Amino acid sequence: MSFKAGKWQQEINVRDFIQKNYTPYLGDKSFLKPATESTKSLWNKCLELFKLEHEKGGVLDMDTKIVSTITSHGPGYINKDLEKIVGLQTDAPLKRSMQPFGGIRMAQVALKSYGYEIDSDIKEIFTKYRKTHNQGVFDAYTPEMKAARHAGIITGLPDAYGRGRIIGDYRRVALYGIDRLIEDKQEQFDSIDGEMSEDKIRLKEEISSQIQALNEMKELGNIYGYDISKPATTAKEAIQWLYFGYLAAIKEQNGAAMSIGRTSTFLDIYIENDLKNGIINESEAQELIDHFIMKLRLVRFARTPEYNALFSGDPVWVTESIAGMGVDGRTLVTKNSFRYLHTLENLGTSPEPNLTVLWSKNLPENFKKYCAYISIKTSSIQYENDDLMRAIHGDDYAIACCVSSMVVGKEMQFFGARANLAKCLLYAINGGVDERLKNQVGPKYRPVTSDYLEYDEVLDRFFDMMEWLGGLYVNTLNVIHYMHDKYCYEKAQMALLDRDVKRYFATGIAGLSVVADSLSAIKYAKVKTIRDENGIVIDYDIEGDYPKYGNDDDRVDEIAVKVVRKFMNILRKHHTYRASIPTMSILTITSNVVYGKKTGSTPDGRKLGVPLAPGANPMHGRDTNGAVASLATVAKLPFNDVQDGISNTFSIIPNALGKDEIFVGDLKMELNCGCCESKV
Amino acid sequence: MSFKAGKWQQEINVRDFIQKNYTPYLGDKSFLKPATESTKSLWNKCLELFKLEHEKGGVLDMDTKIVSTITSHGPGYINKDLEKIVGLQTDAPLKRSMQPFGGIRMAQVALKSYGYEIDSDIKEIFTKYRKTHNQGVFDAYTPEMKAARHAGIITGLPDAYGRGRIIGDYRRVALYGIDRLIEDKQEQFDSIDGEMSEDKIRLKEEISSQIQALNEMKELGNIYGYDISKPATTAKEAIQWLYFGYLAAIKEQNGAAMSIGRTSTFLDIYIENDLKNGIINESEAQELIDHFIMKLRLVRFARTPEYNALFSGDPVWVTESIAGMGVDGRTLVTKNSFRYLHTLENLGTSPEPNLTVLWSKNLPENFKKYCAYISIKTSSIQYENDDLMRAIHGDDYAIACCVSSMVVGKEMQFFGARANLAKCLLYAINGGVDERLKNQVGPKYRPVTSDYLEYDEVLDRFFDMMEWLGGLYVNTLNVIHYMHDKYCYEKAQMALLDRDVKRYFATGIAGLSVVADSLSAIKYAKVKTIRDENGIVIDYDIEGDYPKYGNDDDRVDEIAVKVVRKFMNILRKHHTYRASIPTMSILTITSNVVYGKKTGSTPDGRKLGVPLAPGANPMHGRDTNGAVASLATVAKLPFNDVQDGISNTFSIIPNALGKDEIFVGDLKMELNCGCCESKV
Repeated sequence: MSFKAGKWQQEINVRDFIQKNYTPYLGDKSFLKPATESTKSLWNKCLELFKLEHEKGGVLDMDTKIVSTITSHGPGYINKDLEKIVGLQTDAPLKRSMQPFGGIRMAQVALKSYGYEIDSDIKEIFTKYRKTHNQGVFDAYTPEMKAARHAGIITGLPDAYGRGRIIGDYRRVALYGIDRLIEDKQEQFDSIDGEMSEDKIRLKEEISSQIQALNEMKELGNIYGYDISKPATTAKEAIQWLYFGYLAAIKEQNGAAMSIGRTSTFLDIYIENDLKNGIINESEAQELIDHFIMKLRLVRFARTPEYNALFSGDPVWVTESIAGMGVDGRTLVTKNSFRYLHTLENLGTSPEPNLTVLWSKNLPENFKKYCAYISIKTSSIQYENDDLMRAIHGDDYAIACCVSSMVVGKEMQFFGARANLAKCLLYAINGGVDERLKNQVGPKYRPVTSDYLEYDEVLDRFFDMMEWLGGLYVNTLNVIHYMHDKYCYEKAQMALLDRDVKRYFATGIAGLSVVADSLSAIKYAKVKTIRDENGIVIDYDIEGDYPKYGNDDDRVDEIAVKVVRKFMNILRKHHTYRASIPTMSILTITSNVVYGKKTGSTPDGRKLGVPLAPGANPMHGRDTNGAVASLATVAKLPFNDVQDGISNTFSIIPNALGKDEIFVGDLKMELNCGCCESKV
Repeated sequence: MSFKAGKWQQEINVRDFIQKNYTPYLGDKSFLKPATESTKSLWNKCLELFKLEHEKGGVLDMDTKIVSTITSHGPGYINKDLEKIVGLQTDAPLKRSMQPFGGIRMAQVALKSYGYEIDSDIKEIFTKYRKTHNQGVFDAYTPEMKAARHAGIITGLPDAYGRGRIIGDYRRVALYGIDRLIEDKQEQFDSIDGEMSEDKIRLKEEISSQIQALNEMKELGNIYGYDISKPATTAKEAIQWLYFGYLAAIKEQNGAAMSIGRTSTFLDIYIENDLKNGIINESEAQELIDHFIMKLRLVRFARTPEYNALFSGDPVWVTESIAGMGVDGRTLVTKNSFRYLHTLENLGTSPEPNLTVLWSKNLPENFKKYCAYISIKTSSIQYENDDLMRAIHGDDYAIACCVSSMVVGKEMQFFGARANLAKCLLYAINGGVDERLKNQVGPKYRPVTSDYLEYDEVLDRFFDMMEWLGGLYVNTLNVIHYMHDKYCYEKAQMALLDRDVKRYFATGIAGLSVVADSLSAIKYAKVKTIRDENGIVIDYDIEGDYPKYGNDDDRVDEIAVKVVRKFMNILRKHHTYRASIPTMSILTITSNVVYGKKTGSTPDGRKLGVPLAPGANPMHGRDTNGAVASLATVAKLPFNDVQDGISNTFSIIPNALGKDEIFVGDLKMELNCGCCESKV
């Protein structure tokens, strides 16, 4: 292959390689090719397996004996003769691997809930000899942390599942081959010397384990008959090498979000090269992508029923970030951006991989049209605001999970789930007593004793309670991430990141609109407390109306902004593990249902158990001033204080948007917007 | 039992209990009783087993399948019907347990060297799933650390064996019972809250594991039919409870020194009580002690041949510290101090347990006489200077290993083996090139190029090289102790220590007298270098005589003092793991032979491979001015800079000391004197 030279040859620098070698594409979709016979045949086999999986209650098969590691399994195939891109998590498609390093109880419960029994030796090993992440966390939790977790005021914590939100730069495997990557890691290892502080010892040991992971990736290639020690030389190899990197990650880790990064434009370079040299034609190019995406659609983890309840299903968040603009003004759209989206036509609609378009107003018109066309046809595209994120991260970032942006190969996130601010408000009113469990969870501050709630008094107590919650929350996460590093370190993913990784300490909040509306009701209407026999406020009577969040009304929107700012500043006061940078998100897309179940009635009139609004959404039905006003409210939230992302789940009847031909269709589009703007 | 009340009832405070309740004994040995028939019969069984062990090449039997933990084995007995104190490391006497947490390779080599094969499942578990201390260390060592270790300039590091040098306060088990200790640890656990720094998270997890160890100790009691959850109520129970605490420690850890502490006066309180109440008579009291000591004589670990070579045998250093004076002026000698020493008569001589008398000039005359009598009879007593150590540690310290003093229950040591200063001097002369291996190990400083060595030039280079060595040495130890805590934490022993333990970072030096003599030779005689074909100095020609260390000659003794001060101050410059306090020792008692093998010819005339002098001793035969002058030289070393102890192995023909009847005998006494004085 002939690539343009650059810094990427002297250092590990995939972005430089892309910038020097990629071919922007401004044309339309007409070059795209349909699925080949091989693709159809393979995909039909997958569809049969999906059907079987569904019929068996959601799980086709599970490993009960083999602990999943990068090299734990022999090769597995859908149909060896037809697959252009190979590699499965275990030795058979949809057979879920066993990953006990995060927690043996979880692994066991996951198996049991589908009728499988864990191998007794494995259970013994991970009980007697090998401590797990989950065990470590619970060995260090304070009673207060456990109580707050049990009550659900801190919730969804990654202490019983992998934290995810790390994107290995899987492209490096293709561009450099494993040997060069090991060489680089060896240099990094040698660069840690001198005074051996604990930080340095830990990093040195980690890099040592990364080198081990790289060697195991090479072995993984061997298992499938490939030598990935040297750089890929064709498009097929590039996709295969990259996928082996990702496969190593998902064999080792079952994080809540195992996103794949930003691979389409990178791979386009290899495809362009092969097309130019007559090695493949467009149909074969699409076939490679189809087979690759097919593999990503097969990714499965063994989860517990609680996990599935929290996430409303069994998502993997194999997020792939597509398109966006370069900082030099050129678009990063290539033919391969089209090919990725085209898989939704060739293979049909699918929630995974989570194809995410990095949307800019400057994206080529033809690509925008194709996105809209595919969105309408499949409802399977997520959009994020590239113009906003490019300003912070440059042009080689990607999305982990649904909205968390990070520079590929240089940044990662300590995922932190959420603090439930709606419950925090109730704690402020009840002096730290949980409104559902009726026990003292928060500090014994003075409760509100009046019949009618008074705005200044409630706000003052709410801010005090937020101070408590913020501290407890950060420290709970400190424990979790310390233990995750100690007992369940992501050595395969981290092997594909730089030495000095920028870490985000990603917190989140739930119940924002409930809090804003509740405080608005207290301020602008009259809210009477209803108490149980012990004087605990368990419900509220609202007399009169009040301004509601979601209507572009500053009276209430400003309360939301104030609460967000306040909480973020409280979080910033605290020590965060490994000098990570605290960030916050408002992005409960599904878990708001579970959180609502654990939250008593609130002063806005919402009743006990009713779901909170997702993310930064207004409560359902309260945004009565139309879509634009609703979006305007969300747009007021300060991105600086919510840098990990704001999600606004937004449903539109397409013909509400006008009569342009591309918006014809009767599907409702659900867009999770990564930042404080929505785009269609 | 009726004990005098005190602070010990409100807090964990064994010293307070002792001070309030013990009965000093000023009388003579006449009360002592001979071994009972049970004792004789049991001990004869042991002697048979020792003989068998010897005949089988040093090891009677080894566990190949069961990983040793506190509760891993069913009960084991010598002769169940006769044993008053029960409990073995495995299910049979002298059967060595398998302890792979420190290193699976070591466990495997230890087995293999005696013809045993490790269970393949265990090997797999500790290779694939459970990382070991040894693996952790080697994953973080720098190439420089490995090279220095290989060359032997840093040597005897506890990276392939347990660090030892932690004394659990086993008395606590007897005085408080396990339940009270768990309660105390739970309070400690709860006292760690607020900002969760990594230090605090680690400590919280450690205390959690300590509580687990305490529960396992209770289970260990159950295995032998005892409920140790409550305090001991008789002497027999007190000894048994205490021994279960120790047994838990040696089932979990195989540290180089598993010392037992300072138990005799504590146990005397229970015995006095039982004697007073007619529960036992003196013969039965002695029997209990004999059976207890017998158990300590049976302690064995599975070691590698390299380990045995380093330590010239297979020592365990079950050091028991006896006698000493109280800070209130009362002696801590009790009848039980006599009983412990009397075991050397009832059971015959033995190197273990390492019975160590804390010697004070104020010890009761009758006890001094008995010590001398037993020393002459058995050569099995070690003496340490209580007057010196009491000033630093108070009156409830004990000796770990041979000289390391620490307050029981409040202090511990990170053992650090040794830096070979004799080699360091050779590196200074050869510009960091190893004189044996001929490779560059130290920094590439300018070598000495002249034919004759010049004192100021050599000293200057030596100090520079010491700066390098000191830094490397401390950082190597930082890696070791970080990994030991991470992969091989001593949870049983630490469960019997306070929450906030004072930690000594115990370094050591070897080759002091060689260095002093070499520098003296360079200064006062003429030393000519002999070089190999590459110009590396490999030997020396000395013209003329020079003052030699060990003759009370300040000209050379001051050099030794200067070197000691300098190196200690270099060590103090560096970051030490866990805010531990750097100390130094000069105490190679046996390993000096191995160190000498790795050290080339030195400018004092010592030839390549010849043993270094042990500890702070003069080189053999060079102390020509008599014993007093030799001791005076050693006494000049500044204890402040060598706080971990100075050993002086000192052989005396008894009748050289006078004609007092108690010194009659034809045995040579070998005394390892803990501090910079010798006492007989």
